[in-house]
Amino acid sequence: MSAPRPRVIIVGGGFAGLHCARVLRKQPVDVTLLDRTNHHLFQPLLYQVATATLAPTDISVPIRWVLRGMPNATVLMGEVRDVDLARRVVIVDDDRREMPYDYLVLATGARHAYFGHDEWEVHAPGLKSLEDALEIRRRFLVSFELAERCERDEDRAAYQTFVIVGGGPTGVELAGMLPELARRAFRRDFRRVDTRKTRVVLVEGGPRLLAAFPEKLAARARRDLESLGVEVRTKQVVTRVDADAVWIGDERIATHTVFWAAGNRASSIARKLGVPTDKAGRAIVEADLSVPGHPEVFVVGDAAAAKDPVFGTVPGVAPAAMQGGAHVGRQILASLRGAPRTPFRYVNKGNLATIGRNRAIADFGFFTMAGTPAWVFWLFLHIMYLVGFRNRVAVLVQWAYAYLTFQRGARLITGRERGEEEARLSHTGEFRIQAP
Amino acid sequence: MSAPRPRVIIVGGGFAGLHCARVLRKQPVDVTLLDRTNHHLFQPLLYQVATATLAPTDISVPIRWVLRGMPNATVLMGEVRDVDLARRVVIVDDDRREMPYDYLVLATGARHAYFGHDEWEVHAPGLKSLEDALEIRRRFLVSFELAERCERDEDRAAYQTFVIVGGGPTGVELAGMLPELARRAFRRDFRRVDTRKTRVVLVEGGPRLLAAFPEKLAARARRDLESLGVEVRTKQVVTRVDADAVWIGDERIATHTVFWAAGNRASSIARKLGVPTDKAGRAIVEADLSVPGHPEVFVVGDAAAAKDPVFGTVPGVAPAAMQGGAHVGRQILASLRGAPRTPFRYVNKGNLATIGRNRAIADFGFFTMAGTPAWVFWLFLHIMYLVGFRNRVAVLVQWAYAYLTFQRGARLITGRERGEEEARLSHTGEFRIQAP
Repeated sequence: MSAPRPRVIIVGGGFAGLHCARVLRKQPVDVTLLDRTNHHLFQPLLYQVATATLAPTDISVPIRWVLRGMPNATVLMGEVRDVDLARRVVIVDDDRREMPYDYLVLATGARHAYFGHDEWEVHAPGLKSLEDALEIRRRFLVSFELAERCERDEDRAAYQTFVIVGGGPTGVELAGMLPELARRAFRRDFRRVDTRKTRVVLVEGGPRLLAAFPEKLAARARRDLESLGVEVRTKQVVTRVDADAVWIGDERIATHTVFWAAGNRASSIARKLGVPTDKAGRAIVEADLSVPGHPEVFVVGDAAAAKDPVFGTVPGVAPAAMQGGAHVGRQILASLRGAPRTPFRYVNKGNLATIGRNRAIADFGFFTMAGTPAWVFWLFLHIMYLVGFRNRVAVLVQWAYAYLTFQRGARLITGRERGEEEARLSHTGEFRIQAP
Repeated sequence: MSAPRPRVIIVGGGFAGLHCARVLRKQPVDVTLLDRTNHHLFQPLLYQVATATLAPTDISVPIRWVLRGMPNATVLMGEVRDVDLARRVVIVDDDRREMPYDYLVLATGARHAYFGHDEWEVHAPGLKSLEDALEIRRRFLVSFELAERCERDEDRAAYQTFVIVGGGPTGVELAGMLPELARRAFRRDFRRVDTRKTRVVLVEGGPRLLAAFPEKLAARARRDLESLGVEVRTKQVVTRVDADAVWIGDERIATHTVFWAAGNRASSIARKLGVPTDKAGRAIVEADLSVPGHPEVFVVGDAAAAKDPVFGTVPGVAPAAMQGGAHVGRQILASLRGAPRTPFRYVNKGNLATIGRNRAIADFGFFTMAGTPAWVFWLFLHIMYLVGFRNRVAVLVQWAYAYLTFQRGARLITGRERGEEEARLSHTGEFRIQAP
């Protein structure tokens, strides 16, 4: 028998984890990829599940299916609870099984954050997982169902008011979808609700929307949203959220449906390592993306605060996670060969956001795009990056249907209201996987 | 203003309820359709959601979208808790709102039944709603995930053993799908699990499978299942089900995954009317499908025990529900015109069941079909009857993908394990719809 091969454990099957695994294909290492779900999620399209356009299965693929052609990789469904850096083991699930590693890659992502108001999550769910998206879809669709049951106009108006907190790409993309859904897709379906009276409010604490984009493009996005009927409120802060209303400063807006897109916090495992973190809970990593004092441990993707010497802080976007994951894979291979580590260099491939139908903005640094050309480019790019031939076809069909008919194909209400406890559990990353 | 128009309340948006509503289109009545979900479900394809082939949104459409072109119909999401036959009101939801009717149509369907062993439901979920299908999908997929984590062969074997109780169409169709999934779709995805060792056991208490089909066709279906590797056990009764095993007579089969397709019980509302019911809880209705002593109240579809003078007991299949619903609509119109009621005549359009890929059986009374021709016919018929153009295209794409690649497009594990309480609640029909 040959000598035992180095064991690499990758935690998280998102963009960073999968791109790290792919670099290790056909290399003399044994890879174990752990994820608490069974699927890789194409997060950039998650807001389309939340707005009843795509089905959850359209934007997800089994992680083990993605890695089926990589015999040195084993995929296990399980949740890492702790890491023992001294003994080099990860501790998994309720039964606290121990799994030893020679190299560890933490690519566990982030959850949304409520700036010290975790009690708001019950009334204002965020959008990071498929469960989140289904909960937002459920609330959005149920609001119209309840509006149709109302006897009084003011009750109906509250159910037709949607407040989105946070003017980043997620908030802008959600806000851009809702008016078309209400005014076009739902138009003939209700007898008592005038769906054209639907009110969508987008609240941003900072001076403008889309802080990561050039000011001119952000202003264009704002005009696009306003032309769709969205009320955009910048420099305004949410001070209270409950089941019947949201307060913006001292102003009370009657609503039952608030969506949260305002902040991120790294998954709890990055914070449990005992290494320095920034204020969003992200592990501050070395230039090669390893953890200070532990060259065998890497944190990558949204769970890490990485710095590029030229670009500055690496943003929490899919291309950065892919590049970071691949870089970590190469660092592990370098160490096996006895070669030195190299610093991570982030290549900015541009920044995109869509605003409803036919409108998008794109920033490539050296040039920018807006309107229909940017939207077509966005469409092309997202189809190209979707994993799996079936998903590409399925998404194309759903989009063609939505574009041509103004209808939506995933207007399905399932599940029960998420209880306070469950929301809290999923927020802190303790969403359990149980045996059947 | 004109005189108030007769109020027709239809409870349930399945095949029977929708076909009743359609007959009342452009007629001088106000129709209210109540359903506790927002969607019409194409139940004949539910087993394909349970086996990760189709997405829930592929086989469901919003009820209000189906009736969007019927201005005299209002669709409301709500759950009927009681009917007061004397005062002619239905009582809806937790707040017990009262809705008066002139004609009432109960088309509330059935749930699965455990023959006095309701405690088995936790370990052996049935297949009637989308939630059920997602729960079966979750358990089926999680079983393989847990098998991959097992260290010992006998533990792994238990997670690779699937027992299906009930040899009717649902049981046969589930059993026919699992071997192909395990042996083909999952084949390259696992490192420790040999998916070819997957064991599927189909248990039927009666002397043969598919009692509603001619004996020759049922024998063909059995041979088809056995050629796929399914262990078919007839004249054998399940005596105990728990989390780790199922007992067939005195034989213990180690398994964590049991699916129930053995019995039906009418929804609780039919039993609450205080009219005579059969042993499956179905309301025994008059020849015109109305309730004895209450010509203004009808029970139709799986909730009713209807008799055709020639055919005998009307079976609980989709065409019977469609015909019954339309018949009830015509009876209401007859009463409005002062015309006499007419008895319901069931037209048997044939009976179909599929067994995996390329195989099906079809019985049209005067002639029968089996094998690939029956399967192609089954495919064509189901696509034709699916509601909504988008769903037809989506299902065709998914089927083409599954057929050509042997892969499955909906291998997604979501949600948590259904707790005991929730399973019981949904079983007794008290699955609540809550405001967000």
